[in-house]
Amino acid sequence: MTKLVLHTLPPSPFNTKVRLALSFKGLDYDTVEVHGFDGREAIVEATGQPLTPVIVDGDRKVFDSFAILRYLDANFDGPRLYSNTREGMREIERWEDLSRNGYGPALGLMLNMVISGEQNADTITLVNKLFDQLTVRVEQALEKNAFLTGDAITAADLAIAPFIHFASSDPESSPEKSLGRAVSTVLHLGARHARTRAWVERVMAYDRTASAV
Amino acid sequence: MTKLVLHTLPPSPFNTKVRLALSFKGLDYDTVEVHGFDGREAIVEATGQPLTPVIVDGDRKVFDSFAILRYLDANFDGPRLYSNTREGMREIERWEDLSRNGYGPALGLMLNMVISGEQNADTITLVNKLFDQLTVRVEQALEKNAFLTGDAITAADLAIAPFIHFASSDPESSPEKSLGRAVSTVLHLGARHARTRAWVERVMAYDRTASAV
Repeated sequence: MTKLVLHTLPPSPFNTKVRLALSFKGLDYDTVEVHGFDGREAIVEATGQPLTPVIVDGDRKVFDSFAILRYLDANFDGPRLYSNTREGMREIERWEDLSRNGYGPALGLMLNMVISGEQNADTITLVNKLFDQLTVRVEQALEKNAFLTGDAITAADLAIAPFIHFASSDPESSPEKSLGRAVSTVLHLGARHARTRAWVERVMAYDRTASAV
Repeated sequence: MTKLVLHTLPPSPFNTKVRLALSFKGLDYDTVEVHGFDGREAIVEATGQPLTPVIVDGDRKVFDSFAILRYLDANFDGPRLYSNTREGMREIERWEDLSRNGYGPALGLMLNMVISGEQNADTITLVNKLFDQLTVRVEQALEKNAFLTGDAITAADLAIAPFIHFASSDPESSPEKSLGRAVSTVLHLGARHARTRAWVERVMAYDRTASAV
């Protein structure tokens, strides 16, 4: 079997999700980091579209983190990311949707501010409030179970945890001048959501390559 | 190259989307129709999850219509379903999101009512109103372009058109006693959204297997 290759833009939570999935399923892979326009051109050439993450599996390519997790789960052994029941699938998809349409846009607002180089108190207040509100649903789920949909990690956990990690990690743990540190400095869950913070650590423990980011 | 195999539940718009994509890209494929529990068991065994559509490509399997369209576009020739720019991808993803979180739940309400065997006037009124409101956005996009994101079909058109087809087709065109006819009898766009109705016909013309459904 050829070794999987992950084309990735490290600070993106959708990329982190794929790294977590690869590690969780015990799959070995090489990483190609995309920086700036040159890397994107290669991705467009390979897949017809410019976004990371992209997985290359021999002569097959898959883009989009939601598609990649499904591809990994259908084609490789290791613990399951999805459910064998319709209701289980619906539940996981609801959490995936929260990552895409809840946390995604909220973090996007903060990233745009950080990249612009100017702090905006209104944006910081708004995004912290959004994160707090969204995380109420996570905290409630974790009152019942160790993970979002039960007693085992699924794609639901891998989709949500990388977003909250920005808001729950110590800025000092990110490389100086990194995007992760810049965001962590202004985005924080504070003392609330203790179960969520402990769960983020349990899930992010699978990010074996985090130290390289 | 091995021939693609599509495991499909015919009345589902997410399945129709994949058939449209296969035809649009000029790909040859065999169809396995899933009916009831036996078919689902085989799908769980093959992919670890129970939902259609599923594509089998030699020794590789892909489930979820959004993942399948990306897989087809990255790995096969033919006209592109996605965009080579970030803004183009965002625009297509917004339409995909409208299909998943707008039209999807609305049609789901109507399907549940039809499957229950009892007509409910409130449900019929609500779902028709939802479809009318959602379709305002489609009609506006089609005032500017022949297709949702420009002058060519993309995944955006393939995601939305199968839903509106339920509301814009003549019930008589569906097989008697089919789910499609039962829904088309109570769900209808009426005389509004003329551009949308013409566009649905143009997109659905790619559904070469529709007569078999």
